[in-house]
Amino acid sequence: MVNENEEIKISQSELPRIVVVGGGFGGLRFLKKIDTNQYQVVLLDRYNYHTFQPLLYQVATAGLEPDSIAGPLRKSFQNKKNFYFRMATVSCINSDKQEVETNIGRIKYDQLVLACGSLTNFFGNDEFEEKSFPLKQVPHALNLRSQILQNFEKAVLKTDENEMQRLMNYVIVGGGPTGVEVAGALGELKKHVLPKDFPELNLNKMQIYLIEGQERLLGAMSEFSGNKAFEYLKKFDVNIYVGKIVKSFDGETVTLNDGMQIPTETLVWAAGVKGNAISGLTLDITPDNRFKVDDYCQVVDYENVYAIGDVASMFSEGYPKGHPMLAPVAIQQGELLASNLNSLKKNKPWKSFSYQDKGTMATIGRNKAVTELLGKFKFGGFMAWLTWMFVHLILIVEFRSKIVIFGNWLWNYFTYDRGTRLIIRPFVKNKAGKKPKKESQEEVLVA
Amino acid sequence: MVNENEEIKISQSELPRIVVVGGGFGGLRFLKKIDTNQYQVVLLDRYNYHTFQPLLYQVATAGLEPDSIAGPLRKSFQNKKNFYFRMATVSCINSDKQEVETNIGRIKYDQLVLACGSLTNFFGNDEFEEKSFPLKQVPHALNLRSQILQNFEKAVLKTDENEMQRLMNYVIVGGGPTGVEVAGALGELKKHVLPKDFPELNLNKMQIYLIEGQERLLGAMSEFSGNKAFEYLKKFDVNIYVGKIVKSFDGETVTLNDGMQIPTETLVWAAGVKGNAISGLTLDITPDNRFKVDDYCQVVDYENVYAIGDVASMFSEGYPKGHPMLAPVAIQQGELLASNLNSLKKNKPWKSFSYQDKGTMATIGRNKAVTELLGKFKFGGFMAWLTWMFVHLILIVEFRSKIVIFGNWLWNYFTYDRGTRLIIRPFVKNKAGKKPKKESQEEVLVA
Repeated sequence: MVNENEEIKISQSELPRIVVVGGGFGGLRFLKKIDTNQYQVVLLDRYNYHTFQPLLYQVATAGLEPDSIAGPLRKSFQNKKNFYFRMATVSCINSDKQEVETNIGRIKYDQLVLACGSLTNFFGNDEFEEKSFPLKQVPHALNLRSQILQNFEKAVLKTDENEMQRLMNYVIVGGGPTGVEVAGALGELKKHVLPKDFPELNLNKMQIYLIEGQERLLGAMSEFSGNKAFEYLKKFDVNIYVGKIVKSFDGETVTLNDGMQIPTETLVWAAGVKGNAISGLTLDITPDNRFKVDDYCQVVDYENVYAIGDVASMFSEGYPKGHPMLAPVAIQQGELLASNLNSLKKNKPWKSFSYQDKGTMATIGRNKAVTELLGKFKFGGFMAWLTWMFVHLILIVEFRSKIVIFGNWLWNYFTYDRGTRLIIRPFVKNKAGKKPKKESQEEVLVA
Repeated sequence: MVNENEEIKISQSELPRIVVVGGGFGGLRFLKKIDTNQYQVVLLDRYNYHTFQPLLYQVATAGLEPDSIAGPLRKSFQNKKNFYFRMATVSCINSDKQEVETNIGRIKYDQLVLACGSLTNFFGNDEFEEKSFPLKQVPHALNLRSQILQNFEKAVLKTDENEMQRLMNYVIVGGGPTGVEVAGALGELKKHVLPKDFPELNLNKMQIYLIEGQERLLGAMSEFSGNKAFEYLKKFDVNIYVGKIVKSFDGETVTLNDGMQIPTETLVWAAGVKGNAISGLTLDITPDNRFKVDDYCQVVDYENVYAIGDVASMFSEGYPKGHPMLAPVAIQQGELLASNLNSLKKNKPWKSFSYQDKGTMATIGRNKAVTELLGKFKFGGFMAWLTWMFVHLILIVEFRSKIVIFGNWLWNYFTYDRGTRLIIRPFVKNKAGKKPKKESQEEVLVA
């Protein structure tokens, strides 16, 4: 049996040990770059795979197979010596003893890199957490995929028009990239895929609602992009409500702050994220649960503890409100921190972080996207979609995944079809709107 | 809410209604062939997808993604009019009322086709059913895949040699095609894949045991094939014990009938199947839970009830012990029954079933197989493997799956790599050998 109080077995080494918590974009880039001639490196992650989060919505809407957007962590570092992976959930940092506590035991560090990312932010509302569908991990995506397909299997059974309509209504909260992409993908399912699978249903009745609290979509991008996204989504008949907030969801009906009610069994929660800060450090964390770091990613007041990516809150020139919680920030911070640690011996002065914003994008349906490059070039439509696909293929971890994903996209593109419409969780017999299993963020169960 | 006592909603039709239970090989072929100008056809299945069972072992050993070997049932019949699919678990047949009872309601039939396949046969042993890993459905395969990968994640944590060895021992019961294929695929993982992922472990310690009660492997095939399979598996250092029976498994140790003990957490159960006969018909079913049918697949004493495939027990010339429970039998019975029902109106005499045995095969590792064609040609080695791959690609349901599978195989072939080493179920914290969740055959939970 695993003893949580024992030390995790790792080869003895003369080298100082860096423990990295989290194999997301930031952790992965740090690990690629860190010099394991100088350090022994241990990666801890609760999953044994990296998740390519920007494409999770494709899994949730049956466009890609889950394995295509996830890469085994061990495989990524097969040829890296002095590298160790341990599948573990970190519960606490003990900085006095220089160790972290996990579900499989304790582990000592000389340097600690916190790259534990972010969690869905339900803003303290238990009802939303229990009854809505978040989209941060592979199991979330599989769960949403099963829900969507089960809804239609149930809809064909209904004689009551209202019950049927409720199963065919989808409410997405949050008009950021994830919300926009889910809405677009659902629109595509409605238009091209589901009518063929469900000839008995009138798919015109399927209604997609996108609710955004701010006054326009894609608040983090330009107004141009927000407007383009609005325009493209309208072509899929998405009902867009801006400046409105979801007040409650009882599993059957969503109520907005202006009293409007939408009957639905499926509320997709894309309304925000918060840092996944681990307890134990005696410093103030930010209200959104992130570690305050300086320009070198060092956690304030802790000399050998660093944080990168979504869990790090760094204010610097040009970013008085902090950096956006985006993959490129995490990647660049991981790169910088590794390079600084690599030059520690040489006594070179450390370089401070300066974010290179190469652009942001969001895709809507099978051939539309909005793209902003280098803060200057903004464009939409098919060219933006091509750029989007190209960038995602370049970024994705594994060569093999690239082939699979490209093959899937080509297939979808030419056939208007989607490959993976499989429900692989038990058919839900209980009352509408209840998910089959309560999922907490920390121990996400399975699709 | 679904009312189990209400009738399932299906469009009214003048045509007689055929209800088909089960979308496996037999049901699928029947549906392709049945003339829906003459009949309204309703397919019931507890999953919304067809499973290509011969390749389940590839999913279980991380060679293929689950979605590659499963095809959405609705998609298969998109262009078939008067076809209806309902995702439902059938609980009972009420032949007096000519209806079946399901978890989503009752449904009337004019003709009933039982194509409900087979279940893993634990021969009444609850311990095996609870603690071993069967391999009949996609969730089973995902469960076994997670177990195998978790074992190695746990093994790297162990300081106790015995505990580590137990995690690296695999016992497979049953030397038929499934057992042989799993053993070969595990041998391949041991030789080519795992050493790269787990450089800390001495993979020579991984031991694969294949236990067969009869005196040789592949009892349903020729002695030539049995011997070849034995020879190929020996090259993967598989420990083969024939003429031995597994007596007990407490989750930590397998005990054989001669007293031999093997410490392991993973017992793969490939020792046999039994029919999945549904209750309600007042006739004797066979000891292995199948419906007795005549040469026309008609269930004995029931004029408008038919059974095909694994759930049908048919004795005929050349098969005094009944037909083997194999996909080709199910496919040919489905084809014949559909053609007989199609000619019902024309008053043509019905054709009786005559099994065309085109051959059987089993594969061992990435480029070895044994193949027997037309009862005459027996060969092994690479040519047999090529034949095996070709036949499986031809048989597989969907064009898209073919591309994905072929791509995966090519990739594995040239890289000695396997793509899908993801654990997507919760990390098991409880005591060794306990599966995270009891799975009954009827309500298989999730990987």
